[in-house]
Amino acid sequence: MSDLILTTFDWVPERPRGYVRDLRVRWALEEAGLPYRVESVPFDPRGPEHFARQPFGQVPWLTDGEMSIFESGAILLYLGERSEALMPAKASARAEVLQWVFAALNSMEPPFLAWLVLSFAKDPFTTDGAKAVASFRDKRLLHLEAVLIGREWLAGGFSAADILMTEALRLFDGSDVLAAFPACQRYVLRATSRPAFGKAHADQLAHFAAADATGARHQ
Amino acid sequence: MSDLILTTFDWVPERPRGYVRDLRVRWALEEAGLPYRVESVPFDPRGPEHFARQPFGQVPWLTDGEMSIFESGAILLYLGERSEALMPAKASARAEVLQWVFAALNSMEPPFLAWLVLSFAKDPFTTDGAKAVASFRDKRLLHLEAVLIGREWLAGGFSAADILMTEALRLFDGSDVLAAFPACQRYVLRATSRPAFGKAHADQLAHFAAADATGARHQ
Repeated sequence: MSDLILTTFDWVPERPRGYVRDLRVRWALEEAGLPYRVESVPFDPRGPEHFARQPFGQVPWLTDGEMSIFESGAILLYLGERSEALMPAKASARAEVLQWVFAALNSMEPPFLAWLVLSFAKDPFTTDGAKAVASFRDKRLLHLEAVLIGREWLAGGFSAADILMTEALRLFDGSDVLAAFPACQRYVLRATSRPAFGKAHADQLAHFAAADATGARHQ
Repeated sequence: MSDLILTTFDWVPERPRGYVRDLRVRWALEEAGLPYRVESVPFDPRGPEHFARQPFGQVPWLTDGEMSIFESGAILLYLGERSEALMPAKASARAEVLQWVFAALNSMEPPFLAWLVLSFAKDPFTTDGAKAVASFRDKRLLHLEAVLIGREWLAGGFSAADILMTEALRLFDGSDVLAAFPACQRYVLRATSRPAFGKAHADQLAHFAAADATGARHQ
């Protein structure tokens, strides 16, 4: 099993570095101890061969021999079938992880992302719509806070769900949003202190820094 | 296997009727031909026993004997292990469905939902943030349109992914957003013409109408 290939962009601007979604897959692969190599596609332009692998022009995708799979959530479940470090084998424990995987990606990340898009635009949060988005975000964080006060990880031991929830919460890096949610804040610290996260994060930064150095992309 | 219990609210206001997320699960159960029954929890107030089953105070959840699982995406994958009407058995076909399940819930629904929250607030889409949200929505729809021009269903035959993608696209019901994306529009029509959708939709409407009739809730 040494033919896992993770594809990401050759280069991205400064801001998304450390946050591009290949990080989730790198982190999962490091937790699982599965060997892999990283390949690149152009950030710009994105050609038909990119859209053939990933119909939204995003990254990452993973190839495993003949198999090619996109969406980081799907990739993590796919890898979870290979490693109990990501997904336990017992049916009831699997269902528990599965629900938290979807909670991270479908109940948490959407309001967080909506807030992020508005905050990048630098509009004040004064319109009714922007206030509704901020309140949607805080409502979900409040519920998550109540959950995380009582547990170390979301579903028993550390799992793929914690990778995805941490990545959803890292959308608040550089803001003070999590200051009001200390259990969430401690959870992110706990997760990002794991060696597998450290390696994945450093590797992503090095990947994009190498593109700067080799002049693969100048902007 | 007649002990599947789907739990939803006892009552909801008019607007969300036909869109409450138990619909996704009802639809999947009807496609799979699995027997189930529906139970209710109070819409208001939501008590500790509700949060114990669903930590965000949402619905639905599904119980299967001792097992209790929330998040409609997780429930659909769980049911997919019982029925090839939702998820094919072959590994490569499963991976294909899996990536489209996550594409619906994590690449499509978040920008659609962000737009919906802003549009409910009735602010004009004139701020930079609101424009960014609308452009995010259209970018994703444009890519999905390109995919749907070439295929009937997302991943081979009809699957759980089509239930979730249709439900994401139904967020535009009552708006003219999909008029510019005819393949998406035809796809929604194709999916919602299936008898299983019709039954699930009618059953949800009847469930909430019954609550009005019995006076379980007056508002």
